[in-house]
Amino acid sequence: MESYMIYMPIVLAILGLIYMLIKRSSIMKQDAGDGKMKEISDHIYVGALAFLKAEYKLLTFFVIGASIALAGVATVVESTSYLIIVAFIIGAVFSAVAGNIGMRIATKTNVRTTQAAKTSLPKALNISFGGGTVMGLGVAGLAVLGLTAFFIIFYQMFMGGEWTNTTDMTLVLETLAGFSLGAESIALFARVGGGIYTKAADVGADLVGKVEAGIPEDDPRNPATIADNVGDNVGDVAGMGADLFGSYVATVLAAMVLGNYIIKDMGGAIEDAFGGIGTILLPMAIAGAGIIISIIGTFLVKISSNDAKEAQVQKALNIGNWTSIGLVAVACFGLVTWMLPETMKMEFFGEGLKEISSLRVFYATLVGLVVGGAISSFTEYYTGLGKKPILNIVQQSSTGAATNIIAGLATGMISTFSSVLLFAAAIWASYAFAGFYGVAMAASAMMATTAMQLAIDAFGPIADNAGGIAEMSEQEPIVRERTDILDSVGNTTAATGKGFAIASAALTALALFAAYVTFTDIDGINIFKAPVLSMLFVGGMVPVVFSALAMSSVGKAAMEMVEEVRRQFREIPGIMEGTGTPEYDKCVDISTKASLKQMLLPGILTIGFPIVIVLIGLLIYPDNHKLVAEMLGGYMAGVSVSGVLWAIFQNNAGGAWDNAKKSFEAGVEINGVMTYKGSDAHKAAVTGDTVGDPFKDTSGPSMNILIKLTCLIGLVIAPILGGHSETAVATNQNVEVIKEISVETQGDRTLDGTATAKVITKTTIGDGETLVKEKTFKGNLDEVTKQAEAYAKSQKN
Amino acid sequence: MESYMIYMPIVLAILGLIYMLIKRSSIMKQDAGDGKMKEISDHIYVGALAFLKAEYKLLTFFVIGASIALAGVATVVESTSYLIIVAFIIGAVFSAVAGNIGMRIATKTNVRTTQAAKTSLPKALNISFGGGTVMGLGVAGLAVLGLTAFFIIFYQMFMGGEWTNTTDMTLVLETLAGFSLGAESIALFARVGGGIYTKAADVGADLVGKVEAGIPEDDPRNPATIADNVGDNVGDVAGMGADLFGSYVATVLAAMVLGNYIIKDMGGAIEDAFGGIGTILLPMAIAGAGIIISIIGTFLVKISSNDAKEAQVQKALNIGNWTSIGLVAVACFGLVTWMLPETMKMEFFGEGLKEISSLRVFYATLVGLVVGGAISSFTEYYTGLGKKPILNIVQQSSTGAATNIIAGLATGMISTFSSVLLFAAAIWASYAFAGFYGVAMAASAMMATTAMQLAIDAFGPIADNAGGIAEMSEQEPIVRERTDILDSVGNTTAATGKGFAIASAALTALALFAAYVTFTDIDGINIFKAPVLSMLFVGGMVPVVFSALAMSSVGKAAMEMVEEVRRQFREIPGIMEGTGTPEYDKCVDISTKASLKQMLLPGILTIGFPIVIVLIGLLIYPDNHKLVAEMLGGYMAGVSVSGVLWAIFQNNAGGAWDNAKKSFEAGVEINGVMTYKGSDAHKAAVTGDTVGDPFKDTSGPSMNILIKLTCLIGLVIAPILGGHSETAVATNQNVEVIKEISVETQGDRTLDGTATAKVITKTTIGDGETLVKEKTFKGNLDEVTKQAEAYAKSQKN
Repeated sequence: MESYMIYMPIVLAILGLIYMLIKRSSIMKQDAGDGKMKEISDHIYVGALAFLKAEYKLLTFFVIGASIALAGVATVVESTSYLIIVAFIIGAVFSAVAGNIGMRIATKTNVRTTQAAKTSLPKALNISFGGGTVMGLGVAGLAVLGLTAFFIIFYQMFMGGEWTNTTDMTLVLETLAGFSLGAESIALFARVGGGIYTKAADVGADLVGKVEAGIPEDDPRNPATIADNVGDNVGDVAGMGADLFGSYVATVLAAMVLGNYIIKDMGGAIEDAFGGIGTILLPMAIAGAGIIISIIGTFLVKISSNDAKEAQVQKALNIGNWTSIGLVAVACFGLVTWMLPETMKMEFFGEGLKEISSLRVFYATLVGLVVGGAISSFTEYYTGLGKKPILNIVQQSSTGAATNIIAGLATGMISTFSSVLLFAAAIWASYAFAGFYGVAMAASAMMATTAMQLAIDAFGPIADNAGGIAEMSEQEPIVRERTDILDSVGNTTAATGKGFAIASAALTALALFAAYVTFTDIDGINIFKAPVLSMLFVGGMVPVVFSALAMSSVGKAAMEMVEEVRRQFREIPGIMEGTGTPEYDKCVDISTKASLKQMLLPGILTIGFPIVIVLIGLLIYPDNHKLVAEMLGGYMAGVSVSGVLWAIFQNNAGGAWDNAKKSFEAGVEINGVMTYKGSDAHKAAVTGDTVGDPFKDTSGPSMNILIKLTCLIGLVIAPILGGHSETAVATNQNVEVIKEISVETQGDRTLDGTATAKVITKTTIGDGETLVKEKTFKGNLDEVTKQAEAYAKSQKN
Repeated sequence: MESYMIYMPIVLAILGLIYMLIKRSSIMKQDAGDGKMKEISDHIYVGALAFLKAEYKLLTFFVIGASIALAGVATVVESTSYLIIVAFIIGAVFSAVAGNIGMRIATKTNVRTTQAAKTSLPKALNISFGGGTVMGLGVAGLAVLGLTAFFIIFYQMFMGGEWTNTTDMTLVLETLAGFSLGAESIALFARVGGGIYTKAADVGADLVGKVEAGIPEDDPRNPATIADNVGDNVGDVAGMGADLFGSYVATVLAAMVLGNYIIKDMGGAIEDAFGGIGTILLPMAIAGAGIIISIIGTFLVKISSNDAKEAQVQKALNIGNWTSIGLVAVACFGLVTWMLPETMKMEFFGEGLKEISSLRVFYATLVGLVVGGAISSFTEYYTGLGKKPILNIVQQSSTGAATNIIAGLATGMISTFSSVLLFAAAIWASYAFAGFYGVAMAASAMMATTAMQLAIDAFGPIADNAGGIAEMSEQEPIVRERTDILDSVGNTTAATGKGFAIASAALTALALFAAYVTFTDIDGINIFKAPVLSMLFVGGMVPVVFSALAMSSVGKAAMEMVEEVRRQFREIPGIMEGTGTPEYDKCVDISTKASLKQMLLPGILTIGFPIVIVLIGLLIYPDNHKLVAEMLGGYMAGVSVSGVLWAIFQNNAGGAWDNAKKSFEAGVEINGVMTYKGSDAHKAAVTGDTVGDPFKDTSGPSMNILIKLTCLIGLVIAPILGGHSETAVATNQNVEVIKEISVETQGDRTLDGTATAKVITKTTIGDGETLVKEKTFKGNLDEVTKQAEAYAKSQKN
């Protein structure tokens, strides 16, 4: 009995967190510079903490409100435990702590990176990437720790730490969903609020500083510049961290739910060396292994030459990344073949039960790893410097802003082609290999390298900040040159990181969607039912409206920022001459307040819509909970499909505009003429970039949270809709249901030692129609009896 | 027996066409002006005909190719008749003729409107609206004529003009689908090609003329100006006409298919005064009545004062429109209660058979009429001058093009909210009233006023052209002022017309979608099956990529135009002084060739994707045609949901930018300062308008065709997937199916004179599971036998 395996992920998570602390203290020991550098860095640190403090205050109210709502659910639904509230709160706290760790380390690492860049590029990379590593391990470690710990606790409480049946395990997992919901709710506010914050500050600072006052970016005379740098941390570090924390937890949870469903398909119990829950433990084990693998990967990210360019830095990151992915594949092979029964039975909709070898689950995980890699390449193609789409936008900039915008929009739109086909193929393939468990395991494998992905991703804004500090503290040009190399690579990793985030969100949403159907016990989601179809339309609309709200929020907040900066330029004497000190904190305050205020409406939209749909559904069909469950499922599908499309469209259009603008810095050839910064074409490209800013940093990335949170809310609501199904249908006016279930076990063993059991289900549906279903089991007497009883029970529900 | 009713729609259609001819000759008798006016008008006429000729040439190849493909389908599928090819070709020809009529009358009416505007505004309205009326009646008359004539012919050929059974009627309607497919295919090319044509010419003319050379719009010195005016006719007249022609035919067809399905639900035959096909005839009857009602409506569109302003003109149009809608409601009440059985039985998915009174079908038609009205109001709100969204965009223009673009995009995106909720509610409500027949009848009622809608819509571009001719032929300012009043109203009706077109496309697509499910005989479309879900994603992606292609096409074609105009400015001596004559035909030629070339890729995408999905599906699941049918259904749903969203987004964003720019003409207040044309804010608004041009006139309206054509192709492919289902499932390796159907009729009448029949269906599904379905019929012996046999037959398929 390898039942100690249940503790393995916790051990690995703790190891990861210990390594994180060591790494953290080694970074903190680095020289943090002095004088102006330190002062600016402190401003950023204080600004970031101010945002976090204000955000936590708001979130406290939200968590209290949501807890009350969950208590309501737990009161109404008999099978929902009050413990879901505890899990929810801890999930929220863990997510907030993960974001906090990331933001603190990022705002401490930035100045140390600047300081290191004074002498050595390798050291600067080492420190900035080290900061990212701390962030990544904090997120991944806390996610695995929290999820596994709660699982063990609930497994003890509801099942006494031993396998009983799938229904009890469903209770465990339903309660565990609270942890995921807590994490994802915080992610909503961190991602959306952070996204609004960073772009309000960025756009506001640019509009007055660069355009009106004609001072360069990151100029210390600009009162909004600190807010701008805080924004990098709030949006790109804390927002991204919370996003992936949420994905990570939700993916593993969904895989566990579907693992439980396999046990149901196999007759309600399996014999394995892991206490009969190997299929449920596997995703956690892979997540745990991923932490250690990510640490190994981070060791490989280093350069030796002080004269290295972008290519070498990128190569170092790639080596670390691809090694991690390769090691995860190896780990998946080992864990899958070790932990899963050699062959499993899985129900395929419309195709009945199928025998699935464990190797097919491994193939499904490979699908996930391929998706993670391929999506990054696609993103790089559509947003990468020197690639055809970017050159086309540059070319179109020569005829003005309008053609630049059209080209950028078209690039974003057409980029959905390859990514969506990839997703579609991945869903299909991983399902063909191992059903929806395969889809969830594909997502889990992809997410296993989350720590590594985050390290690569968070290093970008740290380098960006380091450059800002170098500029503001007026360092020698070589310092800025070095940080610019890191920053430039960081821009690419930011784009590919967004690709990873949306791929993870899409697969997570699908896994959650599958888990939802199993929780509600419906026979699938039939969009030929008009109420379901209409909810598919409504679901499709929500990401579009959400994006519009997020974009408008940036506009509104940026306008406030513009007015404040104008006021300071007007009222503070000597500010332009560098003798007067701008009131940075006022700008930080505006961004903080505006972002928190503006994120409310999108938040309400996300959380409110599923709830309203269920309420209206129950009002109109009080006796047909299954139809309401299907309606909510249709809504979830609509949000997912449309959300994925709009995420790719907005991220890639924004990224493409950004790099089209950047192309002018080194000079580009348009119709045979070299064109540089300051040209009309460049101005057109700047317009495009400004349009793209909220696209790629606010509304685009928010889609991830929207689709995941929607599916999670569905999962939490599921027991309300699923639990009452029997009574519900029984009282339906149009359909009368009578169920008679009898089990006849023919005890007489035949010559070859097999016994037969038959289960008959009789259902009378209205209008003189009856349905009789017979199922026969053959095999060993005990086994057959067990299977038949489990089947009968499943038919009763 | 009111079986003469089958001929009623034809008679009404012919009456409409006769009135059209009378109206047409009365317009042609009007004074067409002289000298330069006539010359310019002739240029436009010749240019428009040149486009039509080139288009027809290309379409001939397409029609031949598609006919061969249809012959292939007819060969493979036993139940598909070769007559579908005839129907297809005639459908294509009718659609082309309808477009031809519209374009010829529009290009003859424009100059007559200019001439009339010299003396009288009421007369100018009378003539321009008269041209629209000819167009509207041509489209509606030919649609009803063609559809009804083919129905009668096929009804005679396949059923001998008498009711036999629903299977035979399905054959009739499947063959009739060819007519609809032909119409919609032409619409694809007319809409997309026309959309590319008009915007390539418009953007090209503006970029060189207005921006580079600094000459006003419609200046005769600009070589692209004739192409620009031709474009108005090609895109807004012929394109819109073909679009609505296709919607009209498809909607009525879908309603007929679902009417046949009701007869199936009612046991395979109904007794009524209309030869037992009342439910099938009803949509045709409403369409026929709509033609006469539209004629009545057009009588009401007139103004008396020569000093009338936009408001009076708009009011005259509104009176005509609302009267028509009101009369259709009355006609629906009369026809529904007269032609339908008082109560019908309809199958509701998951809810069984329900008794539906005919009055509920009437309620469903009211839902359709409300949608038609409401969608126009929504569109007007988001794109109307002086409304909040426009004022917001104007305000945002003050900080530059970027904020103008963001505001416009956000407006388009947020406008999906109300429209999608309206659609969702309409689907739900009309389905709740009368199932999918209700949805199709809602669409039919809405489409009944097509002639009137088109008259209102086509009058806009005619007035626009009239203004252009006035400008180019240097008429007195009062002439241009009068045509400007008409043009301005025409801009509003163009926006609301687009709302009507997308609403009709959405409802048509849904009705076709429902018809598809009945044709393939699948049990709905379950998106919980991974292959179906992945196709939902793919379907969602196609409208986005289609839009990107259409937008890029405009960019490419416009660049060619720019180069040609530059060349002429350079090489033709005296062109800017007005002494040299520009080579207008060269520009017309460029637009023509470019649009025809560029529309190929989007066309291939639309037609190719469903076919590829079916081929891949059959390759992977050769024995499970039903799953392939569900996959295609998932694709159709994805295209519809995403297409509707992107249509609303693009149409409204484009319309909003357009009117934000127009706001500057009369002057707007920004931050307390009156701002006019030529200001920086106005320049920013012009940039937004240029971005919006392809949105609202190319890619946005193309979505209508994309979603309708996708669903129609599905419908035509349906027999391939549906017909073989029995054998298909039987050879599936995982599921073994044995069907035993026995009918036992208990002949002994009981005391109350009723007999009982029982049908038992026994299906053995793999893994030792069998399914026995019993259905009992009670009633009159003959009736019961008939019902039971029909039911048994339906179970066999």
